[in-house]
Amino acid sequence: MTKEFFSVTPVEKVFEYIAGFPQTSIETIDLLDAAGRILAEEIVSNIDLPGFERSTMDGYALRASDTFGASEGNPAFLEVQGSVPMGKKPDAAVSAGTAMRIATGGMLPDGADAVMMIEHTSEIDDTAIEVYKRVAPGTHIIRKDEDIRINTPLLGPGRRLRPQEAGIIAAMGKTDIKVYKKPLVGIISTGDEVVEADSVPETGCIRDINTYTLSAAIHLCGGLPRSYGIAGDQFDPLLTIAEKALAECDLLILSGGSSVGTRDLTIEVIEALQHSKILVHGLPVKPGKPTIIAQTGGKTVWGLPGHVASAMVIFEIFVKPCVRHIGGTTMFSNNHYSIPAVLSRNLSSAQGRIDYVRVRIVEKNGLYYAEPILGPSGLIRTMLDADGLVKIDMNSEGLVKDTVVQVMPFQY
Amino acid sequence: MTKEFFSVTPVEKVFEYIAGFPQTSIETIDLLDAAGRILAEEIVSNIDLPGFERSTMDGYALRASDTFGASEGNPAFLEVQGSVPMGKKPDAAVSAGTAMRIATGGMLPDGADAVMMIEHTSEIDDTAIEVYKRVAPGTHIIRKDEDIRINTPLLGPGRRLRPQEAGIIAAMGKTDIKVYKKPLVGIISTGDEVVEADSVPETGCIRDINTYTLSAAIHLCGGLPRSYGIAGDQFDPLLTIAEKALAECDLLILSGGSSVGTRDLTIEVIEALQHSKILVHGLPVKPGKPTIIAQTGGKTVWGLPGHVASAMVIFEIFVKPCVRHIGGTTMFSNNHYSIPAVLSRNLSSAQGRIDYVRVRIVEKNGLYYAEPILGPSGLIRTMLDADGLVKIDMNSEGLVKDTVVQVMPFQY
Repeated sequence: MTKEFFSVTPVEKVFEYIAGFPQTSIETIDLLDAAGRILAEEIVSNIDLPGFERSTMDGYALRASDTFGASEGNPAFLEVQGSVPMGKKPDAAVSAGTAMRIATGGMLPDGADAVMMIEHTSEIDDTAIEVYKRVAPGTHIIRKDEDIRINTPLLGPGRRLRPQEAGIIAAMGKTDIKVYKKPLVGIISTGDEVVEADSVPETGCIRDINTYTLSAAIHLCGGLPRSYGIAGDQFDPLLTIAEKALAECDLLILSGGSSVGTRDLTIEVIEALQHSKILVHGLPVKPGKPTIIAQTGGKTVWGLPGHVASAMVIFEIFVKPCVRHIGGTTMFSNNHYSIPAVLSRNLSSAQGRIDYVRVRIVEKNGLYYAEPILGPSGLIRTMLDADGLVKIDMNSEGLVKDTVVQVMPFQY
Repeated sequence: MTKEFFSVTPVEKVFEYIAGFPQTSIETIDLLDAAGRILAEEIVSNIDLPGFERSTMDGYALRASDTFGASEGNPAFLEVQGSVPMGKKPDAAVSAGTAMRIATGGMLPDGADAVMMIEHTSEIDDTAIEVYKRVAPGTHIIRKDEDIRINTPLLGPGRRLRPQEAGIIAAMGKTDIKVYKKPLVGIISTGDEVVEADSVPETGCIRDINTYTLSAAIHLCGGLPRSYGIAGDQFDPLLTIAEKALAECDLLILSGGSSVGTRDLTIEVIEALQHSKILVHGLPVKPGKPTIIAQTGGKTVWGLPGHVASAMVIFEIFVKPCVRHIGGTTMFSNNHYSIPAVLSRNLSSAQGRIDYVRVRIVEKNGLYYAEPILGPSGLIRTMLDADGLVKIDMNSEGLVKDTVVQVMPFQY
């Protein structure tokens, strides 16, 4: 058992490292499976959308000038030239003194420059209407390029595909898209005291929790988790399984090693991997100080603390952006809003480190309150009760009760 | 073309209807696939966790009373009885004047009641240490039931499984879990003007966008989308495909029908489905007023407006909670926080209806601003630029620039 000194790495530097990690390769998928995937190509508009002048109302296509002066007391009289069929070019044109029936989404006939809502008209007979209102040219019409103009850059690589992005790609006539492959993330739990979750632990042993928390977290941030089981605290078997996992995956997470002995083993194994370069050995954060980050031949290896809450917090703050980056997205893409909340108690912190405090978010009278969940980072209950994290900055000695803090809600 | 009068349904009533819809059946899955699924069973703690007294530090297990009076100048002297092996019951006990080496996560030996951090000790030789600090009983120890006590109710049906829930289930030794099946949601796009996304539209036609936006939205809220293609504006073929879809799916969405003619057709077809009961025909909201909700023999049918943004907004506000409810979750489960943001311009609204205004969220100087995206609800661009919705209440005439509004961010 040896003492240990961390030379901690500033967290900004960690994000710089992450931004430099290589991204996964590209695959083509069906647009119907686009949700949540990361686009890997440029989408430029190849058409005007909708592509023709469309009515946005049910009513009559007409010339606006024919309605000038029209009112309830003094209706304009127009001859009806038939109806615009949906999905077809109108077979007639509108000239002065005439109108055509048109439904929402119908194509404006030649000669017409506005649509009169049916509510402001009255049918005299099948071929004539009275109009009770004036409209300006362009009323209730979508111009042929009003939604999207041809040659407009729409989406680029790194964009996370929401329903609207899928919709716009469909509008371009594209039903196959290039996306980044989901990063395959290997997980190895370590520690002589860790046993399979489906076994009955001997006294002194504990079931493997981290494989399950990390698998779920990887899945929810767009990665594909793959468990390599549990490795004990011996160098050779751990190295063997780590080499196998690294050969198969884009990214490898070793979790465990809260004791100095196991931590020493983890770093030795990571150092022994081919082309290994240790980038980070210790972070100025709590929980999660003994975090390791390495690169080995273009792949990334994380050594996470064994304490269940520590591993989850480090995942949330650092590994998740890393998985997302490797999976093609920008590190802090959409849907990362912080929630202002009133802190329910004082929180103290040591200067020189960043604290990530687990909090519950409670709504009272339309206000959000952040209630810190205290307890050692070995307790999973503290994460179960938590809805997010509050950060206490490096240079702060703490946060004061009843002030508004920013909660980073868990994004799952 | 006929005039039409909606008898709109209050939105509270819609949520009451949704809460009454039957939920999907239950399936058993591997805990490694738990992320985002909805639990369908009770999980009660069957063990104390961790189950034994554990050290949270590397150091020495000892009796706190042996350290009373110890200081840098006056260290306590203790005999070392060997080391606690990880994952095993210690083979010795600690008595007065003795200590055992212990690593983080190790099991406390009998007789010991505290752990002294290694930093506050010094080895004299292999069998003796000096201790420079006092500790109280219980220091650096997790009690055997400190995380979870046996017979504690932990999770119940309807709970969405995050990484921490997966972890706690693993800790209970359970690696198969019962969850609600993902609701299978059928989608039919309607309208004579709508053509397949991978085809080249004739003049007057428009590619099917809604199938793609809805598929992605269904996927992202925990459903399984299934497209039934495009149906034209004829009663019999639409009824046939709707019957087929309803037979296969838990929920059916018809989208399209922005024109009165198509809307009439949609409601007629929904009415003609077996055991059909129309619950809602028109909502006091904008966009999306011509929304239809029906129940047919225990299944739910939605008629969404054809306008792409209208359909997406109605999905976000009403259909998403419906899919989630049918999929077993409570309607407004975790991760539904609103974001306070400064409104960048005045927004007017008519009394008697709820407006859902698309907004972009922009961060400036640490403050969020909500910038309304204006434009007809037929334009997909308005959704592409939006990050969420701002609600203008029924009895409000609008919202005022520079005031703080609550943005409902898109949850995808």
